[in-house]
Amino acid sequence: MNKKAFFSITYQVQAQSEEEAQQTSIAVATEQSVEMPTDAVPPHLRKNIGSVESVSEISNHIWKTVIQFSGSLVDNDPTQFLNVLFGNSSLQPGVRVVDIDRKYLSQICHGPVHGIKRIRKKMGIDKRPLSCTALKPVGLTPGELAERAYKFSSGGIDVIKDDHGLANQTAAKFKARVQSVVRAVRKGEQISGKKTAYFPNITGSAAEVIDRYMQAVELGADGVLISPQLTGLTQMHQLASSNMPLPIMAHPAFSGSFVNHPTGGFLPEIYYGLLWRAFGADFVIYPNAKGRFSFSEDTCEAINHECRNLDLDLTSSFPTPGGGIDRNTITEWANKYGNDTVFLVGGSLYQHPDGLEIATKEFQQTLEDYE
Amino acid sequence: MNKKAFFSITYQVQAQSEEEAQQTSIAVATEQSVEMPTDAVPPHLRKNIGSVESVSEISNHIWKTVIQFSGSLVDNDPTQFLNVLFGNSSLQPGVRVVDIDRKYLSQICHGPVHGIKRIRKKMGIDKRPLSCTALKPVGLTPGELAERAYKFSSGGIDVIKDDHGLANQTAAKFKARVQSVVRAVRKGEQISGKKTAYFPNITGSAAEVIDRYMQAVELGADGVLISPQLTGLTQMHQLASSNMPLPIMAHPAFSGSFVNHPTGGFLPEIYYGLLWRAFGADFVIYPNAKGRFSFSEDTCEAINHECRNLDLDLTSSFPTPGGGIDRNTITEWANKYGNDTVFLVGGSLYQHPDGLEIATKEFQQTLEDYE
Repeated sequence: MNKKAFFSITYQVQAQSEEEAQQTSIAVATEQSVEMPTDAVPPHLRKNIGSVESVSEISNHIWKTVIQFSGSLVDNDPTQFLNVLFGNSSLQPGVRVVDIDRKYLSQICHGPVHGIKRIRKKMGIDKRPLSCTALKPVGLTPGELAERAYKFSSGGIDVIKDDHGLANQTAAKFKARVQSVVRAVRKGEQISGKKTAYFPNITGSAAEVIDRYMQAVELGADGVLISPQLTGLTQMHQLASSNMPLPIMAHPAFSGSFVNHPTGGFLPEIYYGLLWRAFGADFVIYPNAKGRFSFSEDTCEAINHECRNLDLDLTSSFPTPGGGIDRNTITEWANKYGNDTVFLVGGSLYQHPDGLEIATKEFQQTLEDYE
Repeated sequence: MNKKAFFSITYQVQAQSEEEAQQTSIAVATEQSVEMPTDAVPPHLRKNIGSVESVSEISNHIWKTVIQFSGSLVDNDPTQFLNVLFGNSSLQPGVRVVDIDRKYLSQICHGPVHGIKRIRKKMGIDKRPLSCTALKPVGLTPGELAERAYKFSSGGIDVIKDDHGLANQTAAKFKARVQSVVRAVRKGEQISGKKTAYFPNITGSAAEVIDRYMQAVELGADGVLISPQLTGLTQMHQLASSNMPLPIMAHPAFSGSFVNHPTGGFLPEIYYGLLWRAFGADFVIYPNAKGRFSFSEDTCEAINHECRNLDLDLTSSFPTPGGGIDRNTITEWANKYGNDTVFLVGGSLYQHPDGLEIATKEFQQTLEDYE
């Protein structure tokens, strides 16, 4: 493969004039490369200083700036890439990441091990959207959680993920929980006659993540849930790079400040859709529009697009909108977002007056109509 | 020790009225505990729902809300604590963490292994502030970096840290770099007649962090540099919990969106001063006022206070202001911030017309006058 010697990042900066926008862009380019005054950089290393390729005003006092960096700053190290992308510049006021060189990202990051195609094959689902729910609340015993999982499974749900708040609490220790839930799910599958996948939450310290991943494999789980902003994005990338057998579902806990920052952070689709995909998320959970959080429908569509974009030399991710989707609006969302979507519905299924199994059957039927 | 069964987090929320502030607070309390509609929570688990203790207006449409959570949600797991602290609530618009229950934090987090007292003893420095500089720029060979380190060391500097952008690039692979620099620093100490500590950057994937930490120990380094927001805070905590021999210096790369968010994220002193200290940083690098970034002096003083606060049942951290400190302003800052401070001066030393050794001697002399 012809490796890229340089790569570009597109930032948005605030400035009153083109001159100020230029100066700010140079400050970012310097901060993110040599991180010292230009006159103090040895002449033979000045080629490593980031260079401002273009600056253009996109709206009142908001400028788009494209900065080119030398690949030698990163040297194929995904963690160091994050540092060049938004290390110190995250501290510079009014600097936002709005695009990343996709070719370079595809080169240095592993991307999802499985992706949409392989997951469809594993699940035996040709083209319809997938259903997903969350096992909760925290405080239930393994037996109580298993009972709920059985109802979801016998109702025919595609994926059950742990609530991201289920860690290793006394009420339901990881091992006991996974054992009980896997057993219940396999029993439920006998009733539904179809596959239900169970993804326990493995978020923890680095050692715990690896340990719980291995336990999940041994105990027969079908995937894992991880909150990459709690474990470090680089931890998720390490799992993906090891070509582990279970798909990874990524949860947005602790990531909000990166995507709801009015003038800083990341454009949400670049953060969730592009960066999390590059760092190995087979499923990208994000807060859907009209739920409990604040994304617009356009932002959600843009995340969906980045997750699936075939122009990228990385396996695709399944966009997984959640965070307060009403079970009665699934048709509307499925028509809007299309087939390559996983709909994560939690609370609204638990609120169904006729119980979890009926709720699941209705949810499932709505999506199976798209097959 | 009498373990706390409940703990409180103080958030700031935006609301037009007290009623709205109450509703928003309840939404946060629910999101961060059971994460489902209250009516769907089994009656015996409703005690786990976060409870709003108080709501008060602190300025126009900005409210302070104290929420109490059950310790059973966390069960002494620092990663899961971060999730309850600011997992999904990071995605709720206008929610900011402004205080954390210190007693509880001291209970579940390890804190720095060494802290100010032990570091002073190791370094043989009784009461004066410490000097620190950064080895850079990226692109230099191990030999070139060692030459610079030798000048800093023979000039008598207290601490040399790697630039946080020195990872494992071809120009200066980790092992070769640490070997060369340690040797140069030991040689320089012969000239200065005093201790100089060298902290290589170990930031990387979880496996790399551990591997580089062990190499740093073997190769005779005196501490390590880590960017916890790149590795995951939980990775730093894991190192600290293992009671490793080398002190940890924490760098703010990739953390800016948490602290320069106008209505979300964290109050900077709570994030750097309290949380990073609890998660094991012996040294907390933060962007000083009047440098290349944007903190006010009040914010910096507040970070210094949180790092050193003796009311907390955790070892203290050395506040380490950096990010563009002018070598000619050290007296001013030392008078302001007091003795228990490490001054990180990089670029300004490299710009000294008489070279690094003279620059270091002047810097060092200024601080030794405080002994």
